[in-house]
Amino acid sequence: MIQIADKRVERSKAAVLTETYRQLTQSGIGGFSIDEVSRTSGVSKTTIYRHWPSRSALLIDACSKLGSAPPPPDTGTLRADLHALVTTLAEQLQSAAWATVYPSIVDAAERDPEIAALQAGLHKAFMAPFHAVIERARERGEVRLSKPATDVIALVVGPLFYRRWFSKETIDDRFTEATVDAVIKDMLS
Amino acid sequence: MIQIADKRVERSKAAVLTETYRQLTQSGIGGFSIDEVSRTSGVSKTTIYRHWPSRSALLIDACSKLGSAPPPPDTGTLRADLHALVTTLAEQLQSAAWATVYPSIVDAAERDPEIAALQAGLHKAFMAPFHAVIERARERGEVRLSKPATDVIALVVGPLFYRRWFSKETIDDRFTEATVDAVIKDMLS
Repeated sequence: MIQIADKRVERSKAAVLTETYRQLTQSGIGGFSIDEVSRTSGVSKTTIYRHWPSRSALLIDACSKLGSAPPPPDTGTLRADLHALVTTLAEQLQSAAWATVYPSIVDAAERDPEIAALQAGLHKAFMAPFHAVIERARERGEVRLSKPATDVIALVVGPLFYRRWFSKETIDDRFTEATVDAVIKDMLS
Repeated sequence: MIQIADKRVERSKAAVLTETYRQLTQSGIGGFSIDEVSRTSGVSKTTIYRHWPSRSALLIDACSKLGSAPPPPDTGTLRADLHALVTTLAEQLQSAAWATVYPSIVDAAERDPEIAALQAGLHKAFMAPFHAVIERARERGEVRLSKPATDVIALVVGPLFYRRWFSKETIDDRFTEATVDAVIKDMLS
């Protein structure tokens, strides 16, 4: 009996998370409401609040599904590692659901400290593979890395984010190659 | 009498725009409502809709106050021109009201074509001085500009936007100098 009850709880939680995720990808954080999640998932608000004490807690849980960073590539050169990461990022920015939801998180983070903490966590996870490949290049002594890793990451990721969310230009292979080239040139000279 | 009526109309419009702008900077586009603007400005909804046929029309009008780009600097070198522009941008990103509002526009633009058009217009205005200084450097023959101006702008502006809205790191003089250096190096080599 306990097992059946557990399964029912798991099913309810899964239904709520799926519905939250669906709302997020459709309308962003601004369009998300617990009332609506309760209505469409068929799980009562009381039950939802039993599992997630606040709207933010549920959002954070649902957003943890948003983007799981790939394991960092290990091609042997920083240029090829960065190129692999940037190619994957470019694809995701232009097709993954999280790329549509992320601006709503960035916006809410301007005013809501809990969402700001959520964004900081997501950002850290997204950038972890970049830190890993730069760290390995430093250990190999491959490039003179006098500048902080965070500068390198801003130079390589910034232009892609800029194109996806601000200038809305295409992020094609030519652009990603040119961006990685600029960063590598900057570190070598 | 006509003059008095005109003045009253101008006063009402100004009150609505001021209140819209106040709401925008406080809560972003998501927190903005015509009901609330009507209530706090004391201007009836009927009057508001007489001047602005839609919520978007009012938003666009209010946002036109958000950021007026400075005239492009003309120091004689691309490096110094970019440095001046980037220094001003860094200051604005870290203190101007529009830097807090802009993510709500970027977010809404993901789903609302009218807001997307508004964002495109704002973006074009923000980037105009960058295009101007690059164009002048090209005319002077100062640097080999084989890459498109939009690539150069993504490389110089992208890292700043990245720091302000994504990594939330400080944008200090060291960082802006390093960013401009990287871009210039990329164009010279």
